[in-house]
Amino acid sequence: MKPSIPKGTRDFSPIEMAKRNYIFNTIREVFQLYGFQQIETPAMENLTTLMGKYGEEGDKLLFKILNSGDFLKDAPAELMEQRDSLHLTNKISEKGLRYDLTVPFARYVVQHRNDLQMPFKRYQIQPVWRADRPQKGRYREFYQCDADIVGSDSLLNEVELVTLIDEVFRRFGVRIVIKLNNRKVLSGIAEVIGAPDKLIDITVAIDKMDKIGLENVNAELIEKGLDQNQVSALQPLLTLDGTTEHKLETLSQLLATSEVGCKGIDELRFVIDHVEQVGTTASVELDVSLARGLNYYTGTILEVKALDVAIGSITGGGRYDNLTGVFGMPGLSGVGFSFGADRIFDVLNTLDLYPADTMASAQVLFINFGEREAVASLQHVMALRKAGISAELYPDSAKMKKQMNYANDRHFPFVAIVGESELKQGTVTLKDMATGDQQQLNRDQLISDLK
Amino acid sequence: MKPSIPKGTRDFSPIEMAKRNYIFNTIREVFQLYGFQQIETPAMENLTTLMGKYGEEGDKLLFKILNSGDFLKDAPAELMEQRDSLHLTNKISEKGLRYDLTVPFARYVVQHRNDLQMPFKRYQIQPVWRADRPQKGRYREFYQCDADIVGSDSLLNEVELVTLIDEVFRRFGVRIVIKLNNRKVLSGIAEVIGAPDKLIDITVAIDKMDKIGLENVNAELIEKGLDQNQVSALQPLLTLDGTTEHKLETLSQLLATSEVGCKGIDELRFVIDHVEQVGTTASVELDVSLARGLNYYTGTILEVKALDVAIGSITGGGRYDNLTGVFGMPGLSGVGFSFGADRIFDVLNTLDLYPADTMASAQVLFINFGEREAVASLQHVMALRKAGISAELYPDSAKMKKQMNYANDRHFPFVAIVGESELKQGTVTLKDMATGDQQQLNRDQLISDLK
Repeated sequence: MKPSIPKGTRDFSPIEMAKRNYIFNTIREVFQLYGFQQIETPAMENLTTLMGKYGEEGDKLLFKILNSGDFLKDAPAELMEQRDSLHLTNKISEKGLRYDLTVPFARYVVQHRNDLQMPFKRYQIQPVWRADRPQKGRYREFYQCDADIVGSDSLLNEVELVTLIDEVFRRFGVRIVIKLNNRKVLSGIAEVIGAPDKLIDITVAIDKMDKIGLENVNAELIEKGLDQNQVSALQPLLTLDGTTEHKLETLSQLLATSEVGCKGIDELRFVIDHVEQVGTTASVELDVSLARGLNYYTGTILEVKALDVAIGSITGGGRYDNLTGVFGMPGLSGVGFSFGADRIFDVLNTLDLYPADTMASAQVLFINFGEREAVASLQHVMALRKAGISAELYPDSAKMKKQMNYANDRHFPFVAIVGESELKQGTVTLKDMATGDQQQLNRDQLISDLK
Repeated sequence: MKPSIPKGTRDFSPIEMAKRNYIFNTIREVFQLYGFQQIETPAMENLTTLMGKYGEEGDKLLFKILNSGDFLKDAPAELMEQRDSLHLTNKISEKGLRYDLTVPFARYVVQHRNDLQMPFKRYQIQPVWRADRPQKGRYREFYQCDADIVGSDSLLNEVELVTLIDEVFRRFGVRIVIKLNNRKVLSGIAEVIGAPDKLIDITVAIDKMDKIGLENVNAELIEKGLDQNQVSALQPLLTLDGTTEHKLETLSQLLATSEVGCKGIDELRFVIDHVEQVGTTASVELDVSLARGLNYYTGTILEVKALDVAIGSITGGGRYDNLTGVFGMPGLSGVGFSFGADRIFDVLNTLDLYPADTMASAQVLFINFGEREAVASLQHVMALRKAGISAELYPDSAKMKKQMNYANDRHFPFVAIVGESELKQGTVTLKDMATGDQQQLNRDQLISDLK
């Protein structure tokens, strides 16, 4: 009977919205300080744009929009008779909901290539939809928050992104570590242990280090066809420890014979050196076990972990060589990352890091004592708003208790009273809801007090 | 070959986003000054929530989401054989995209009734989707921007909404007229001409006055079954002119025998009097021909027209008695309105009313002269950002001409140069792109100059 919403989706209440707005506004401000520009793309994309971009499993997780009108008119009889849902899908559906912000961004770049100035620094904060099985912390509608710089090979872009991420979490007050690696180092590793064709298996296995531990990673590597010597050769890399300088030294020795490996080390060193010269609040850590499943990364890989909350990666990204090749525009390099908005929301909730005024209603509620008082109150309210102070009049002349309950429930810091005597004297009685203090003020005093 | 987006949808470029953010941020600021709280609801709602709420035509215009997996498994054989698209729809689709913000809001209020403090003042700014035929100025995805106050019968809420609308357009610099009417006045009119059962036909016809003129309205009324006497009796109302006071007087005489009509006049008078006492920039006009097609309005009706651009209504709303009855919670009264975001966008574009800094990129671009200079530049850039000044370093040490073209195309107000001599002296040469003036500055001067 009671209406509900589809599973895996959420309503956001005023308090939740206030918190989410704080998160998104903070991120947006930093993006703007760094010169990133916002774009938005439609919720619906053509299925030809989306299909085949997220693997077979991804295709299934796309939400597809039923064609309007008589969608069955031209459906092939054979598919209808066989009830072949899979193959009938693209006969009765041409559009799907955005699955991430990367593919729409690549589509955008190709479609508007003649209007873009390169390097193009864009950010995008929009919901995406996935028909995943809903579970704790995983939703079918959730926001992504991506920033990319495309059209420039310079490693200074990586440096910018690291300092940007650092600044955002500094503003949130969340202590983090920024983990860095380079896909070329992983290629170098596969090369020197004599298994260059096993690069993907190796990165997939290494990627699980945090979750399943060294022993299970080794078992998986054997299972994937590496021999015992190769796995042994990998060990010093997987257990690399000590200072960043020491790690880089060790890597340099181990990967000395691999050209691509050496290049990866040079890139890592450049990024780490420059980040240090510019300065960050967070610690930046070289982590060779960082692989990030996605195979489209070709250089730097980065990931952010919160130090004080046990939660997965809260931000991740890297450099890619070929964002737009799939749409017929090859060779566009870029570097980008995605803030995990929902996880950041969870982290700030857990650590209770919202500024005190995030959840405040308007500053002051005027109690309604009847028609004449209400008019005088409304004039005060308008004067306050003109001065930039948010204010409300309770619309009905309800019982005092009811109005005060409303003031409490909505957490107004101040309540203002214009009764008969205030009306005569042209004043307002202002009550501080935290201390209970009351003061009788004229309008100018009221404004300056609330400011 | 070139990728595209579904017809009726749009990409928003950085410049368009800057303009749209200006519009939404302005509206949001005023909402907050007035104590409205933001909520968001999911893009997808259950079809049981959406169907039957927008009429038969509306049901067809809903975008429906194909069920995941083997959606044909339980489809009735008969419907499959008859290729009955219409009736098969609800067998293979359970969810649809939001068609407006009103129905999801009603659903939200019922679902969360125990957590809400009444009166509940909410605003909501989200896209909606309609499978309408796309045409100039009409899109399949567009933003709505709604504010409502529910759970209070007080006409002071109407007064608040009128002043809120006034303040938003004052901030935009758009000259408007706010037209008011009251559905009870329309009921009174139907009553006194002896056609109370024709209320809907009369309001629908009157609503077209602006578009088709008095003569055609009269013809339509005859066609709908009114007799010549009734149409004649309507004429003084349809051609009502003069001051608001005069209009109210005339209405009072004409509707003296109708109880509901008199109530409508009292309500109108209350709202108009109070708005006057509080003060507005815009003129507020009583317009008896204002009907607004929607039959769920029961009291005040309002509409906003721009004075300097020929475009339809740019904001509209009114009071309703029964927002949530359809979800099993009867008797909830409220008043609300919707800003027509896309039309407001068109109006501001036509009148070129965006503040000068709306479209600015970052404040300053540092030219990249090579590795050592870039590091020094990046340190300046970081110091500027720390001081709240947005700044960028061109990431590649490309040819000067290319970098300056980029600065021009992106409309940077300033360009900063750190070459060999600046590097030695620890200075920056700052070029004002508008005047061409150049100055050599140390970092403190740079920061205070750009602030």
